[in-house]
This record gives sequence, C-alpha cells and structure tokens, in this order.
Amino acid sequence: MGLEIEQIASVELSDIAVSETHGEDSPYFAGWKAYDEDPYDELTNPSGVIQMGLAENQVSFDLLEEYLEQHPEASTWGKGAPGFRENALFQDYHGIKSFRKAMASFMEQIRGGRAKFDPDRIVLTAGATAANELLTFILANRGDALLVPTPYYPGFDRDLRWRTGVKIVPIHCHSSNNFQITPQALEAAYKEAEAMNTKVRGVLITNPSNPLGATIQRSVLEEILNFVTRKNIHLVSDEIYSGSVFSSSEFISVAEILQERQYKNAERVHIVYSLSKDLGLPGFRVGTIYSYNDKVVTTARRMSSFTLISSQTQHLLATMLSDKKFTENYIKTNRERLKKRYQMIIEGLRSAGIECLKGNAGLFCWMNLSPLLVKSTREGELELWNAIVHEVKLNISPGSSCHCSEPGWFRVCYANMSERTLDVALERIRNFMGQMQRTN
Amino acid sequence: MGLEIEQIASVELSDIAVSETHGEDSPYFAGWKAYDEDPYDELTNPSGVIQMGLAENQVSFDLLEEYLEQHPEASTWGKGAPGFRENALFQDYHGIKSFRKAMASFMEQIRGGRAKFDPDRIVLTAGATAANELLTFILANRGDALLVPTPYYPGFDRDLRWRTGVKIVPIHCHSSNNFQITPQALEAAYKEAEAMNTKVRGVLITNPSNPLGATIQRSVLEEILNFVTRKNIHLVSDEIYSGSVFSSSEFISVAEILQERQYKNAERVHIVYSLSKDLGLPGFRVGTIYSYNDKVVTTARRMSSFTLISSQTQHLLATMLSDKKFTENYIKTNRERLKKRYQMIIEGLRSAGIECLKGNAGLFCWMNLSPLLVKSTREGELELWNAIVHEVKLNISPGSSCHCSEPGWFRVCYANMSERTLDVALERIRNFMGQMQRTN
Repeated sequence: MGLEIEQIASVELSDIAVSETHGEDSPYFAGWKAYDEDPYDELTNPSGVIQMGLAENQVSFDLLEEYLEQHPEASTWGKGAPGFRENALFQDYHGIKSFRKAMASFMEQIRGGRAKFDPDRIVLTAGATAANELLTFILANRGDALLVPTPYYPGFDRDLRWRTGVKIVPIHCHSSNNFQITPQALEAAYKEAEAMNTKVRGVLITNPSNPLGATIQRSVLEEILNFVTRKNIHLVSDEIYSGSVFSSSEFISVAEILQERQYKNAERVHIVYSLSKDLGLPGFRVGTIYSYNDKVVTTARRMSSFTLISSQTQHLLATMLSDKKFTENYIKTNRERLKKRYQMIIEGLRSAGIECLKGNAGLFCWMNLSPLLVKSTREGELELWNAIVHEVKLNISPGSSCHCSEPGWFRVCYANMSERTLDVALERIRNFMGQMQRTN
Repeated sequence: MGLEIEQIASVELSDIAVSETHGEDSPYFAGWKAYDEDPYDELTNPSGVIQMGLAENQVSFDLLEEYLEQHPEASTWGKGAPGFRENALFQDYHGIKSFRKAMASFMEQIRGGRAKFDPDRIVLTAGATAANELLTFILANRGDALLVPTPYYPGFDRDLRWRTGVKIVPIHCHSSNNFQITPQALEAAYKEAEAMNTKVRGVLITNPSNPLGATIQRSVLEEILNFVTRKNIHLVSDEIYSGSVFSSSEFISVAEILQERQYKNAERVHIVYSLSKDLGLPGFRVGTIYSYNDKVVTTARRMSSFTLISSQTQHLLATMLSDKKFTENYIKTNRERLKKRYQMIIEGLRSAGIECLKGNAGLFCWMNLSPLLVKSTREGELELWNAIVHEVKLNISPGSSCHCSEPGWFRVCYANMSERTLDVALERIRNFMGQMQRTN
C-alpha cells in the first residue's frame, strides 16, 4: 500500500475475519494468480498463461454493443433524457418495477415459456454471490447444514459458509452415472449430517451444473423435490446458466415442475438467477432470488438493503430486456455460438485423446484426465494441475477444488476468449498429450 | 403478489429471518409509509404528507446533470466509446483503480486537503449500509457489543445487529451539553456492557452526526481516540455527511487527527464514506471503507464480493470525480446551498417559536418540541409525532426512533424538496404552533 502504517497494536478482529472459510487459498484462486502474473497475449506475451479458469461469456458481446449503439436512451443522460434524478435517488429495495418485470419475462423466455414468473416474487441482489449468501442467512442457522452435490462451484465454500457459519455437507456424485444425483446419495448425505448432530436445512443444486456443464434430468429433479418435501427442508436451485443451455428444450427448471404440480409444496423452493453468465455482465452485479415462499420474499427484500443494484444499471437493463426482439435474438444466437464453441473444444480435446463428460450447457466442459494420473489421489491431481498451469501454461480448475470425489477431473472454460486463443490452448494440450505419451 | 401460492408447509426459516432486529417496525419507517400512502404534490395532492423523514440531497442535482450533459463519455456506450466490454466484465473486488483514486482524492478535497487517503486502502461496497455491516462482521463476534452515541441513525439497529448478532450499547448523550460525547458517558456505556458480561469491540461515531446535523469537536474526537486506545478496541467513524458541512474548516475528520499523530494506534480506526449524501446519489449504491488496518483492508475486500458496485457506475463516477474543476465547484456550491436551506428552516421554525440544536452540517436539523409534550415520556413524544404526521401531514422522525434519551426531539430533513415545498411545510408548522398556543 502507498500509505504504510505500522501495525503494532494487538486490537483483535472477529472469528469470521480470521477464519479461512473465505476459501481463497484454494487452487481455484491460485490458478487465477498464475494467470494474473503472466497473462497470455497473442502479440505481447504469446507464451503466457491462457485463462481457462474463468466462467465468462464473451461470445455475444457484439449483440449487446449493437443494442447500446442503437439505443442510446438506455445509457445516456443529458439533453432530452430525463430520468437521471429519479434514478440517482432510487434506492427502494423493491427495485425498479420495469426492471423486475423485464427480469421475470427474460426468465420465462429462457425456459421457452414453460414456466411463469411473478415480478413481485423477484428480489434483486448485487450478483448471485450475494443471492446465495442471503438465502443461506434466511434458511439456516449457524452450525446447520446445506446439502450440496459434488462437484460444486468452489465459491460456494465462501458464499454459503463464511459469514453465515453454515456448513456444507457434500452429496457425493460419481462418474459411473455421469455425476447424476441419486436418491441414495441424497439419503447418505442426510445421514452423514445427522451423524454429526447437524441439522439439515436444505439442498442446494446448480442446474445446469457448474462445473459439469450439463443440465439435471427431469426424473432427478422430481426425486430431489420429493426428497426435500419428505424431509421438510428447503431446495435452492441455482439456475444462473439456464440461458446458456445449447437447446432450450434440454433445460428443465424446477419452476416448470412446480407449475405442473400446481405449486404444491412450492414454499420450500427458491431459485437463484443472475445476468453475469447468460448475458455476460458480471461487472454489472445483477443477481436475483425468486422465492415461492412469501415470508422469504419479504425477508430477502429487507436483507437486500446490504446488496442493492445500482439504479443506473437497473435502468439500462430494464430498457434492454424489455425489448423482446432483442432478447429473442440474443438468447437464440448466444445458444448457437456457445454450442459451436463447445463442439470446437470437445473435438479438439478428443483429437488429443481426451474425453469429457457429455455436456449441453454452460461456459466450460468437465475434462477427464484421470488416465494421466501417476497417483489416483488429490495430491496426484494437483501435481498434474501444477504441470498444466506452469508448464502447459493453461489455467484450468482441478476437480478437487470443486470437492469432486474422484481425482483427475478438471473444469475447462472456453467462452472467455477468442476462437484463435482457444486454438492456441488446444494446440498446447495436444503437444502436452504427445509428450506424455512419449514419456510413458 | 400476482402469483398467489398457498403457504401450507411448516418449513422453518432461520432465527435471523424471523427476528425483529431488522428494525422496520420503528416509527422511523412507519412515517415513510404514511408518506407513501398520501404523498404531497403541489398540484395534485396539496394536502398530502410532506416527506421530511428522508435525508436526501436534491439541492445540487443541476450540477450533476450539467456535467453529464457536457461529458457524455461518462455514461454513453456505442460508437467511438470503447470500454463497454471491459466494464461489463470487470468484477474484481479491488474496484476500478481510477475510481478508487478519484474517491481518495474526493475525500481529501472535502477535508480541505488536511488528510491524505491512500487509494489502496479504499474498499468499495454497495452503499454505507453494507460498509457498516461489513465492518461489524470483521470487528465483532455474535454477542459482542459496539458502543454508539445516542441519538443515532435508526438504520444502525439493522445494519450493525441484524445478520451479525452484535449488540449496540448506547452512549447516552444529553441536551445539557448539546448532545456531545463525554469521557464519562463513554466509560458508563463500557461499564454497562461489562455488567452484562458483554465484550466491547469498538465505538462507532457518526461525524457529522445524523440526526444532530452537527460536527464533533476536535477535543471530543481526541478523547474518543484516547478512550479506544486505552481500552484496546476499534473506532469506526461514519463520515458520510463530511462533504455536507457548511464550511470545510468546521469539520475535523479522525483522519486528520491520525495524520497529526503520525498514525500511531491508527490500526484500530476505520472510516466509512459514501456518495449517497454528499453527491446525492443513493440509488447508485456507492459506499466505501477506509481502514488503517492492513488485515481489515484485505478481509473487507474479500467480503465485498457480497456487495460490489456496478462497474458501469464505477466508470461514470471515476470520470466525474477525476474532474477536479467539477468537484471543486460542486463541493463549494453544494455547501453554500445546504447552508442557505438550513438558515431558511431554522429561521422559519424560530418564527414559529421552535428552537433547534445549533447545526453546521447534514441534510436535517434536530428540533426541540419538548415544551409541547403533555407527558415527558416516549409515549408523549409518539403522541405528538402521530399528530404531526397525521394532522399536520409532515413526516418527521421522532427522537425515540434514534434512541434519544430525552423525549421531545425530532429530526427534520430539508434538502429533499424544493424551497416552495419547504415553505408549505413551514407554514403548516406555524399554523400548528398557533393552534397549540390557542388550546393551551
């Protein structure tokens, strides 16, 4: 820091402040640092680290830019554009009504119109990170647990645990059935919590799954719903990649099933959504909680005071997402481009002798390098990961950082770069695999 | 809600969700509801409730609008304006560097250059609400206490207590010395916490004070700093009205005193700031923590993941606040206008026979109606308040909602309306006082 201040006194910080549950010491974040220190650039640093550890969607930016250019009223203030005063002052935790309406409608469009969303049940938060923490504060006490299927997004260790004091008990999933959640795995996790005298408050699923890049099947969703109903606990369905499924018909939202069930037992279900992935706008910090529980809606709204979205940003996105012509074209084109990218990386990896889990969604694939492990352990996986980050110069995320129960799986992001850069990355992998074969 | 869902199941929520520490049942918020149901409008509802319970700054909007009109590059994207992609993606919790620099510089300007701020010690949060909660999470455990001088901003009951489980122990201040904090009052509060077996982790002051509308004197600040050093606890100085002091020389920031003391014992001091009040931009959700403690800076930055500011908004404000010519003129003009408003209301009230605490800052005055109380109790105060809200149709905030230890004081906001509306409000007060005198 510029202003060095001697830190002499022994003034104490809280247990939360000194705990390690923020999770930043995971290899997931260590890989980001490796990239930050030596970032690849085609011209200025062609031997640098390529960032494949960041689930960012950069494939459809041109559509957003085109919209903004054609619709300056969405972002500009000044002559002939009133609205600045109202926006500058608007800090009501209900959010701008036109924005909530546009969000509800966007969520319906993504689901092919097969589920209805009521704008009054939408609570806005500054990103899905905040949405997941906020729901955890509302659903569970310190020391209670949420069951989360593995592998899961490494950030959950921070979001669900750090400030809330809530525990994550893993629902162990396995490659033998493509990492699908089974009733047996749900029961086993529940029993594990019981054995620790820990009260289970809910199940949190991500659908489509990060890191698997695949949607959850209807029958599995039905089983999960039945399970939480039987146990009288909550279900949080994080659907932040729901617009990034390559084909709308392949995604079944829990919202769709609840609607079919006439919302019976719906008050235990809460959906998390965000514009960070499907619209590629993580910097704008737009998350949302959609709850079927009236009391959760009221409480979450009050709590959202700690994490409101800039009204400037709400204003821009209300305008953009209210334009049906734009959203329809965006959703369709974005799906096609993501699918094309997915095929490009899957085929590239296959030609190098690498198989991935069959995916249909997301900004990443789930790559199986277990045949390459010298030791089939977490350590063995991290050794291989270390070589890939520091020698092959690709930052990918090791499965162990996602609490995967089998070593050798890696999450590889492919939508945060150009096709040219993806080609370079695939070339590096091919070379690496060639080397491995020669040394074996 | 549009989508009615029968809430049948008994699925439980957390203790935090069902607790009442969110504080929304206070008359502070009840008054807002009275306004919302019957809002005054010169033309369409001239007998409606005038909102004087909202500390909003609307007196300098024209300066912001003028800037935005002259500098479309701050808000517009499209042709010839790159930057959209970088902004859309920017979600690094360090914040946009140019914005942190501009914030540090703006905070220096407000203090007449008498204190330096290091951009690397600035942590950005979505508003001061989040900043205060975040600091509480870092400084205190559940069940610990912060000492807060009364009267204080009613929102602190939510911000410091709700999700953190931390207690507020009041430092009782009195009208006999203009509600100044004394060493005796500090010691008494500390002893009260000790008597309850509660660990005191810090003192939180607001300087200038909300609701008093006055700055804290240098000698008092020195005493507070000595007190927290002696007790080895923290000091949080909430300075969100520091740019709304009518004359720069009348505001002494704790930053200034620390600089004079060569930052000795500075690592226990943390400043909260925001652009909601001084710049009148509460909708943009821009708050900041400035800490002299390295570990607090690191931890707060990590924690800010839950409450990041839209990069669109950071971009706009980085541009605006980097323009020294604009900021200098804004700060100066805004001070003059607030002072003029203050004199207008003080003189209006005096002519109606009402005295206020001598103020020099903020967007409100602290009005003494204790001579009017039938019973000198909290109930007596709320009876009078009820009459003022529902008969005089002015929403003001009763001192009891600010935990004032003496009944009969009220906070009256004057910067969230036009001069014409303020005239109407003063006229209503004069009539009310006339009535009171006739019935006595």
